[in-house]
Amino acid sequence: MHTLTCYACGESVAYPADPASPSELPGPRCDCGEPRWFEPDPGTLADLSWPADLDDRMWAFADLLPIESPATGMGTAPGGTPLVRTPTLDDYAGTGVWVKDEGRNPTGSFKDRGSAVGVALAAASGAETVGTVSHGNMAMSTAAVAAASGLDCVVCVPSNIPEERLHNIARFGPRILRVEGDYGRLYHEALAAGAERGVPFVNSDTPARVAGQKTTVLEAVAAFRARTDGDLPDAVVLPVSSGGHASGAYKGLRELRDAGLIPEADLPRLYLVQAAACAPIVRAYDRGLDRVERVERGETVAYSIANPDPPSGSRALYGARATGGGCVAVDDDAIRDARRRLSDAAGLTVEASSATSLAAVRSLVADGELDPDDDVVCVATGSGFKESIDDAPDLGVETTALADLGEAL
Amino acid sequence: MHTLTCYACGESVAYPADPASPSELPGPRCDCGEPRWFEPDPGTLADLSWPADLDDRMWAFADLLPIESPATGMGTAPGGTPLVRTPTLDDYAGTGVWVKDEGRNPTGSFKDRGSAVGVALAAASGAETVGTVSHGNMAMSTAAVAAASGLDCVVCVPSNIPEERLHNIARFGPRILRVEGDYGRLYHEALAAGAERGVPFVNSDTPARVAGQKTTVLEAVAAFRARTDGDLPDAVVLPVSSGGHASGAYKGLRELRDAGLIPEADLPRLYLVQAAACAPIVRAYDRGLDRVERVERGETVAYSIANPDPPSGSRALYGARATGGGCVAVDDDAIRDARRRLSDAAGLTVEASSATSLAAVRSLVADGELDPDDDVVCVATGSGFKESIDDAPDLGVETTALADLGEAL
Repeated sequence: MHTLTCYACGESVAYPADPASPSELPGPRCDCGEPRWFEPDPGTLADLSWPADLDDRMWAFADLLPIESPATGMGTAPGGTPLVRTPTLDDYAGTGVWVKDEGRNPTGSFKDRGSAVGVALAAASGAETVGTVSHGNMAMSTAAVAAASGLDCVVCVPSNIPEERLHNIARFGPRILRVEGDYGRLYHEALAAGAERGVPFVNSDTPARVAGQKTTVLEAVAAFRARTDGDLPDAVVLPVSSGGHASGAYKGLRELRDAGLIPEADLPRLYLVQAAACAPIVRAYDRGLDRVERVERGETVAYSIANPDPPSGSRALYGARATGGGCVAVDDDAIRDARRRLSDAAGLTVEASSATSLAAVRSLVADGELDPDDDVVCVATGSGFKESIDDAPDLGVETTALADLGEAL
Repeated sequence: MHTLTCYACGESVAYPADPASPSELPGPRCDCGEPRWFEPDPGTLADLSWPADLDDRMWAFADLLPIESPATGMGTAPGGTPLVRTPTLDDYAGTGVWVKDEGRNPTGSFKDRGSAVGVALAAASGAETVGTVSHGNMAMSTAAVAAASGLDCVVCVPSNIPEERLHNIARFGPRILRVEGDYGRLYHEALAAGAERGVPFVNSDTPARVAGQKTTVLEAVAAFRARTDGDLPDAVVLPVSSGGHASGAYKGLRELRDAGLIPEADLPRLYLVQAAACAPIVRAYDRGLDRVERVERGETVAYSIANPDPPSGSRALYGARATGGGCVAVDDDAIRDARRRLSDAAGLTVEASSATSLAAVRSLVADGELDPDDDVVCVATGSGFKESIDDAPDLGVETTALADLGEAL
């Protein structure tokens, strides 16, 4: 039997196999206050094997998800993103770098994995509208999957959202609701208000979303094995914001271990990275705390991970520690520099928040946490094409007449 | 023996297996003036089978390419893009629609397939710098693969290139050379000037690029077969600009036929689409001509396919006719409408030039060229996130206070 389980207190409830209405969809919170996640049936884990190929993209891991792959539509298409071995970044990073390029999901970020599961479940329960609270990738992604599924979508955004992001969200035609008030409270109140009105909110720690998002790491590990004759990466470095993706990453690794596919001793260590200007999870880690506390939100170029009060933060922290990994903060100069290296030396344009993972590797090697001969997976969570580069150097464009082209070359 | 062959006059020369210097790289033109393409050894075709899986992305078809897959780096990562069955577009299109989402290549367009082959060959020949003539996707793509391969890159752009596109090209750090003069002539003169100076230009009809770009259709057909128990699509609809991608698409289909993997009678028909404001290939098709003649370039929202003098235009036309397909033009209103449908009804944001393929299907069904029960692959050549939407409707953003959220929902 699939369950919903709390990592913190262990409380477990049956997962509704076939919810007859949106109100039967499981909410994210345990009574203890921490988020619950989807726990596949133990028999499923016992029977699990590595997928023969990854042609089904994220759905190659459907056995570990609360719903089967849709037959058609954009919800079939998330995942299958490349794991790129990038030796041209090794000197910079100080170790062996592999980039998991999540910008190659349908709306340009890993969020599509979770949206595909969350929106499909909402549709199966009879919902006609889904919602989300986001000012960026999750908004685009939820709106796109909803559009492709014939559902209406309402996106709640903070009142100070920049124009560029509004335009990207509007591509997929959702109702956009600018909400004046505390953005952290909005997250929780939208869940509650939506549940009352039959509008499921597929927020960052909704169990279905977290389940979908565990496929990032499952794919990365499977692809690494396939490329190295069965080896495993030493570490996975992941930008962390709400903690939902990080919780899923840990959950995915744990399921591979529980299924006997990865020995406990070989489990890749999970490192989480935040921007120094807004790093509540790193702060709790450094202080040895179990619970992440809210911080003041500072300004950072990595705005899309600047969450001062992450709803799954404590769980993410728990996961990083449980793998023997940790949490690290990087400043904006290091983030910009890493972003530039990814494009100049590896041909990959990523959002600033994604570049934190490469910056973190550099810092972890300097601190002795990672070794020069390690193989490290940097998760690049989103495409660079969705944000302008605010610090573009002089483009250095030269001009020549056609007649002088030979000389110019 | 691999050869370089002219589709028009049949002349064939040996393909240099291991060019010792950039000057030995084959140029694109036959003495008859038409472009030559890479022709795999007949023995290779005789031994060809469908790939067991597509985990190697475009390199699953390495047997049909002039070079093996690189071991590492971003050049390993093009292809593997999803073929999405999109029933929510069927009513609009009037037939069964499948979208091949090429925006999910590393730099957001199909160009990465050709750049990976072209730049790898240039590097293998000892070149230290590669060039290209482009104001958009090909520029980004060539610059990115060059950066990842440790090569310098020079991109020649027209003098009137908009700022937004310059910024996207500059992400990957190439030398950008703005050339004053006729853009059509620049294309050919850059090839010549580069060849003299050991700077191979990987332009749109360079044989290596065209070879790489045939993998779009090879993958689409392989994925369609895998999803339908061995069936084949009835038609493939492809936006056409220089004609390089279209030439590769035809070449790929012909190789599958020559290898005995597709019966001649079941060969998908290839339809090429242009923007009405700049449609030299459609003009030649409509007039029954064999050679495409230069037209005046009109303004269109699909700027990235508005090539008034396509270097591989006649070959593309030949290919479309040879499959029993054809050529069709669509106007800007139809293009904008199709782009909006792709995002609103299928969750896929594409460039305007990519949306021409869906607009063309609608037109081809209306003309009786396609049947309502056909399965048609629309190639969406590039991601929408790289261009602003110039006709964004009123975003319709509503504002509410947090306390009133429930009511607003």
